[in-house]
Amino acid sequence: MIGGMGRWEPNARGRLEQAALELYAEHGFEQTTVAEIAERAGLTERTFFRYFADKREVLFAGAGTLRDLMVGALAGAPESAAPIEAVAAALQTAGALIQERREFSRQRQAVIAANVGLQERELIKLASLASALAEALRQRGVGEPAASLTAEAGIAVFKIAFERWQSEAGQPELPRLISESLGELRAVTAGG
Amino acid sequence: MIGGMGRWEPNARGRLEQAALELYAEHGFEQTTVAEIAERAGLTERTFFRYFADKREVLFAGAGTLRDLMVGALAGAPESAAPIEAVAAALQTAGALIQERREFSRQRQAVIAANVGLQERELIKLASLASALAEALRQRGVGEPAASLTAEAGIAVFKIAFERWQSEAGQPELPRLISESLGELRAVTAGG
Repeated sequence: MIGGMGRWEPNARGRLEQAALELYAEHGFEQTTVAEIAERAGLTERTFFRYFADKREVLFAGAGTLRDLMVGALAGAPESAAPIEAVAAALQTAGALIQERREFSRQRQAVIAANVGLQERELIKLASLASALAEALRQRGVGEPAASLTAEAGIAVFKIAFERWQSEAGQPELPRLISESLGELRAVTAGG
Repeated sequence: MIGGMGRWEPNARGRLEQAALELYAEHGFEQTTVAEIAERAGLTERTFFRYFADKREVLFAGAGTLRDLMVGALAGAPESAAPIEAVAAALQTAGALIQERREFSRQRQAVIAANVGLQERELIKLASLASALAEALRQRGVGEPAASLTAEAGIAVFKIAFERWQSEAGQPELPRLISESLGELRAVTAGG
């Protein structure tokens, strides 16, 4: 524990995130103010705004990083990898990252599930992830509509695996659920 | 043309829709008022509100009908049909309906593409369609996660086919693009 170094606060971002999630869960997202978040974290509002543009960004600040890591994993898949395999590599990267932040992710999802506006924002995030993956596939030379279809199918797999991860009691790991859901998608599309 | 029957106005709904789409295209969705829509249609505001709760509903009033028809087509697919085939039947029903309303659909989509709030609403509509299809599959005895995955994959196919239909110059028919996109999804998921 290092502290008292001028205005630098140890793990200010993490403390703000945790304080925000607690307050959103206790009082609801709409009812919580930035002042309350800062107070709960033992920090100033000014410090809050050094890390987040507003209280919604506490929940969505990681989206850009997640997208960049997924696009990087897709781009870095072996040239010989089929489009769906390259997308699977991107999903596994996201799965490992989210699994590491399990508690944050679960708390975050509970807050989002309780607020229609946040659910809309989450859908937009997923749609924009699908667009980014499709663009990364086109960069690999995949044509249309294959690129968009593979990306959208990948996001569908991710969404279902994530929902199972949130709801299943046995605490299966997200990367494994992603593999299973992808296998299931292959099975259902092959059907008939 | 029948007219003058008391306060009954011939094809009031269609005239309001057309007037609204014209005004949204000319001045933007946000800038258009219900009063202007009614005036352009040669009707009163009161008549407008007999058909639509607000100006946004002109664009989304058909969503419930579309969902019911899709769920009906899925439920009515032969018992022997694989889940993906039952979803395909639902998509074809939607495709035929939208193809019939080609001009309305194209104008509507141009308005939505120009407004972030409407795009969000459209994403929510698609997510809720996926939920309805998954529920209809479960009613057929399909388990999870197969039901949700098949439904989400179907909506991905629909979304891509619809985008191609909007943008391609050769005016291919939407039902055919849906079949093609579904074939493409089968090919990409089988890959690797």
